Amino acid sequence: MSGKAIVLLSGGMDSTTLAYVMAQAGYDVIGLSLRYNQRHVKEVACAAEIMRGLQGAHHVIDLSAWGRQMKSVLTSDVGAIPEGHYAADNMSQTVVPLRNPLFLTIATSIGSSLGAAVVAAAVHAGDHAVYPDCRPEFTEAFTAMAEVALDGMHKPRLRFPFVEKTKAEIVVMGHAAGVPWAETWSCYKGGAQHCGRCGTCVERAEAFAVAGVVDPTSYDDPTYWETVTDFWGDAE
Amino acid sequence: MSGKAIVLLSGGMDSTTLAYVMAQAGYDVIGLSLRYNQRHVKEVACAAEIMRGLQGAHHVIDLSAWGRQMKSVLTSDVGAIPEGHYAADNMSQTVVPLRNPLFLTIATSIGSSLGAAVVAAAVHAGDHAVYPDCRPEFTEAFTAMAEVALDGMHKPRLRFPFVEKTKAEIVVMGHAAGVPWAETWSCYKGGAQHCGRCGTCVERAEAFAVAGVVDPTSYDDPTYWETVTDFWGDAE
Repeated sequence: MSGKAIVLLSGGMDSTTLAYVMAQAGYDVIGLSLRYNQRHVKEVACAAEIMRGLQGAHHVIDLSAWGRQMKSVLTSDVGAIPEGHYAADNMSQTVVPLRNPLFLTIATSIGSSLGAAVVAAAVHAGDHAVYPDCRPEFTEAFTAMAEVALDGMHKPRLRFPFVEKTKAEIVVMGHAAGVPWAETWSCYKGGAQHCGRCGTCVERAEAFAVAGVVDPTSYDDPTYWETVTDFWGDAE
Repeated sequence: MSGKAIVLLSGGMDSTTLAYVMAQAGYDVIGLSLRYNQRHVKEVACAAEIMRGLQGAHHVIDLSAWGRQMKSVLTSDVGAIPEGHYAADNMSQTVVPLRNPLFLTIATSIGSSLGAAVVAAAVHAGDHAVYPDCRPEFTEAFTAMAEVALDGMHKPRLRFPFVEKTKAEIVVMGHAAGVPWAETWSCYKGGAQHCGRCGTCVERAEAFAVAGVVDPTSYDDPTYWETVTDFWGDAE
């Protein structure tokens, strides 16, 4: 396969794996990252480093003015990032309304302007419980909307290859593709190193464990994840 | 009716009429304008003045970083703004891919965060020929997408009351509502005064004439529109 592929690249494990897989498939990968007043903006620097490794272009679009209007602990200094498992009720505080519709609209409009063959995003099954804009019914509705809104213009194909995959399955794929895990960033707190306690750190540590892949991440609290997952079969 | 209504406000005739009509209906109107590297950015200052007149809040979100990536004569210094009637082939140069999906996503996400009752946009029938993201099939697809993407969150009602109305019909409504036409801005060239020759100036002048409402606009070329419309029944 060939042509340009715009990959929404947060700098996390899933989107980095997607960028690697698409590069291996022969696409000219263009990473697209967004600044949206997120606390963990260091993910954007990680994304830049990842695209240097892939020798692909990297675009960063600033949406901070939008992010400041969003009522989410991710985009505000008020309130604490919740700790625990993604499936817990408190994780809804991390939802940013219509974040994926916004990021995908930007990616698809740039893809149309550039004549890209594909626009891809790494939404996956582990996100479905908390984030409605990661579910298959969303990706289908978005694709239908873009189809009519781009009538008469260049239409990149929209691809969501991980939408039914677990994060552990993505780790297995990324491991095979040679993803430099230590360069990826997950933690919502955006501190010096991964906290090990927020929803995305717990999910990260668990995914490596389930996949049987060595986790190179330095966590402030490296064992917390075991207490809030059922990895050992004894969590509540 | 009551509650907050986010109105996408370009500062043009249609969105200003919509803001006035919704204010008269009892909504607390919040105007939302976007900077997207458009040549006619002076429309944003007009929108601010209009919201001062309505004594409503006005939010401006900067999307310039996105606009610079768009291949459109509206967002680039390269190429000339086409002149003539909107129905002409050359008007496709003014299309910005997924502009309305982007603006509506931003408006709807802010509406969800603010607990707004309504998000409204003034797409109308005169836009259908050139702009696919102004057609009923788009507004329906967007509404369906937002419905699933906001699952579990506050969902503002999406309203497109002008989607089947002509611009002349909007002028009649705006006239009754007391819209200060001289404060509105249409011209894509964004010069000192309206050019009278670009697609949106032609549409503006024609709409006033068809509606039988006095046009207070000063055009550089005040009679060009008559030569490219069939107002007198003798155009090609």
